[in-house]
Amino acid sequence: MSEIKNHKKLFIPGPTEVRKEILEEMSHHMIGHRTEEFSSLFGQIKPKLQRLFYTQNDVLVSTSSGSGFMEAAIRNCVSKKVINCVCGAFSQKWYKIALSCGKQASKIEVEYGKAIKPQMVDEALKTGEYDAVCVTHCETSTGVFNPIEKISEIVKKYPDVLFLVDAVSSMGGTKIEVDKLGIDICLASVQKAMALPSGLSVASVSQKAYERAKTIDSRGYYFDLLELQKTYEKNQTPYTPSISHLYALRKQLDYIVDEEGLENRFKRHRQMADFVRNWAVENEMKMFSELGYESDTVSCISNTKGFDLKSIKQELLNKGYLADTGYRTLNEKLTQEGKPTTFRIAHMGDMQMTDIQDYLNEIETIFKRGK
Amino acid sequence: MSEIKNHKKLFIPGPTEVRKEILEEMSHHMIGHRTEEFSSLFGQIKPKLQRLFYTQNDVLVSTSSGSGFMEAAIRNCVSKKVINCVCGAFSQKWYKIALSCGKQASKIEVEYGKAIKPQMVDEALKTGEYDAVCVTHCETSTGVFNPIEKISEIVKKYPDVLFLVDAVSSMGGTKIEVDKLGIDICLASVQKAMALPSGLSVASVSQKAYERAKTIDSRGYYFDLLELQKTYEKNQTPYTPSISHLYALRKQLDYIVDEEGLENRFKRHRQMADFVRNWAVENEMKMFSELGYESDTVSCISNTKGFDLKSIKQELLNKGYLADTGYRTLNEKLTQEGKPTTFRIAHMGDMQMTDIQDYLNEIETIFKRGK
Repeated sequence: MSEIKNHKKLFIPGPTEVRKEILEEMSHHMIGHRTEEFSSLFGQIKPKLQRLFYTQNDVLVSTSSGSGFMEAAIRNCVSKKVINCVCGAFSQKWYKIALSCGKQASKIEVEYGKAIKPQMVDEALKTGEYDAVCVTHCETSTGVFNPIEKISEIVKKYPDVLFLVDAVSSMGGTKIEVDKLGIDICLASVQKAMALPSGLSVASVSQKAYERAKTIDSRGYYFDLLELQKTYEKNQTPYTPSISHLYALRKQLDYIVDEEGLENRFKRHRQMADFVRNWAVENEMKMFSELGYESDTVSCISNTKGFDLKSIKQELLNKGYLADTGYRTLNEKLTQEGKPTTFRIAHMGDMQMTDIQDYLNEIETIFKRGK
Repeated sequence: MSEIKNHKKLFIPGPTEVRKEILEEMSHHMIGHRTEEFSSLFGQIKPKLQRLFYTQNDVLVSTSSGSGFMEAAIRNCVSKKVINCVCGAFSQKWYKIALSCGKQASKIEVEYGKAIKPQMVDEALKTGEYDAVCVTHCETSTGVFNPIEKISEIVKKYPDVLFLVDAVSSMGGTKIEVDKLGIDICLASVQKAMALPSGLSVASVSQKAYERAKTIDSRGYYFDLLELQKTYEKNQTPYTPSISHLYALRKQLDYIVDEEGLENRFKRHRQMADFVRNWAVENEMKMFSELGYESDTVSCISNTKGFDLKSIKQELLNKGYLADTGYRTLNEKLTQEGKPTTFRIAHMGDMQMTDIQDYLNEIETIFKRGK
């Protein structure tokens, strides 16, 4: 693996850096997926995932990216019509997925950078048109945390509406109390704040969600929650999963839940987020995300000073860092000087405060020289 | 990884043994999936996959098991009605997947252990009812190779019919000339004869298949071939793939295509298959699969001598081998003495003749002692 010399430290919002001992688990030899050895492995993972999700619900595992579970949520939970809360590229993607599955879908839409407000959800649900609502907890493209706690209070008023939450880039970086919030499906990718190699996703599924699935035909096979449930009970999967990822997941969950501990982990993320936000202000830049709704896992900063982000990215690359120059579609509208309008700094996963400090120092040096 | 001591050598029909240098590739550090580094990696994989598939078609990669591409084939290629050729558990599963996707589907069915004959396909297609036919090349549950060369001659007579082939457990173990046979979708799992860790699947897609997909709504997102095509052209994937698997795949393709060489690889599989079949006859057992249609990658043997396969499996386990005691549903009907009616010996992947010889010697010793 000669590329190891060229390794760039990742400050993009996923994949994030994976610790060496977790990468090593990926090299585990293969085992039969219909053996007791496999069931024992999966059986050890399940309760730890439940602790991470603060839930008694099943937490299913899918060999797919988070997009797979986004599709699963739609296929299995939308019978009548879904309302998608759109505030950026990934929440927009979920809306498109709903349409691609042939479902009836509408959207609540706010300007990119803004958060979805609970009353908007209330207005929509009041119409009685919908039986599911999709909320993206962390909108990765704009660095916004949507207020899922407050939204959950609204959704609870509508017992026939399923609450579907995309926690792709927040799970493992902030507390999401699935049972307390009454989230019917909470889905996450492992290559973000959970700091695992990409290729697996996880989702909690409530009894209500399973019941809804039973009323829907044409759920398909690969993302059929009832197929996944059937084998989950036996510590199995319906088809051969990525066994390598399950070994890595087991080890990383031990670290997240027991070694570092959930509260410590969330605190560390909050501290890194605060540090980045303060740094932005000190450098006379503005957060792109709405005040009070900034994400704890990824910061999106407006390029108000017109920095030449592309050449800065190249300089950082030469120094061994992979930087982000803003989400693709957000940067389709450039500044007047033809420069990207935003850039993002990910502060999630197993990264420590010192990593963020070093990285920001590097950026600041380049900024200052550029002046 | 303390389990390494307990490693059982796999003689089950997938996952198969993975060589150490391939397992090591799985520990590659993460990279951004929207970087040139990623595109370079994917770009190196594509032509090697095309050589393995004997095709100029795109060979797409999916972070999912082979079941995922089975669903993709159905969703994207069946507009009118599909005919499924069923001769075992996995071909039956494909039929069920078609129904689960809300498609019109019928089946040609033969007794488990038998092969699908070309004229059966001709009879079905003659009706003009169908616009796609699903054939499982290697029916893993029964050790049958269906005659896809002869079937391809039939399918070619019907230009509106797409030819969909499941090569999950044969690709990499025998020659499948996709372009020559006019296969529109040829799908495979990597954890079988390709000898990679489970968690990824690959599929060639013809222009005709893409054209069909364009006429079909509600293809969904995760398995939408047109989404996959769009990014494939740019050496990208629509969503974050399993990067670890792609590193392993690149290395293993170098081995399969260039180091060992395709012809050598297929010859080795044929030799191992012949050896197992002869061994079965020498031990006065019968092949479960129809004469002349035996698979080169997995042998299914009738337990005509009433061996106590469960205790033999346990003995083999103690000696460090993971044996198969027949496919689940096949063994639901047991022999009169309550014993499994079949067992399978996988001879696929990177396993060598000596591995098979050692394994069969072990079994023979147990057999003889049991007498």
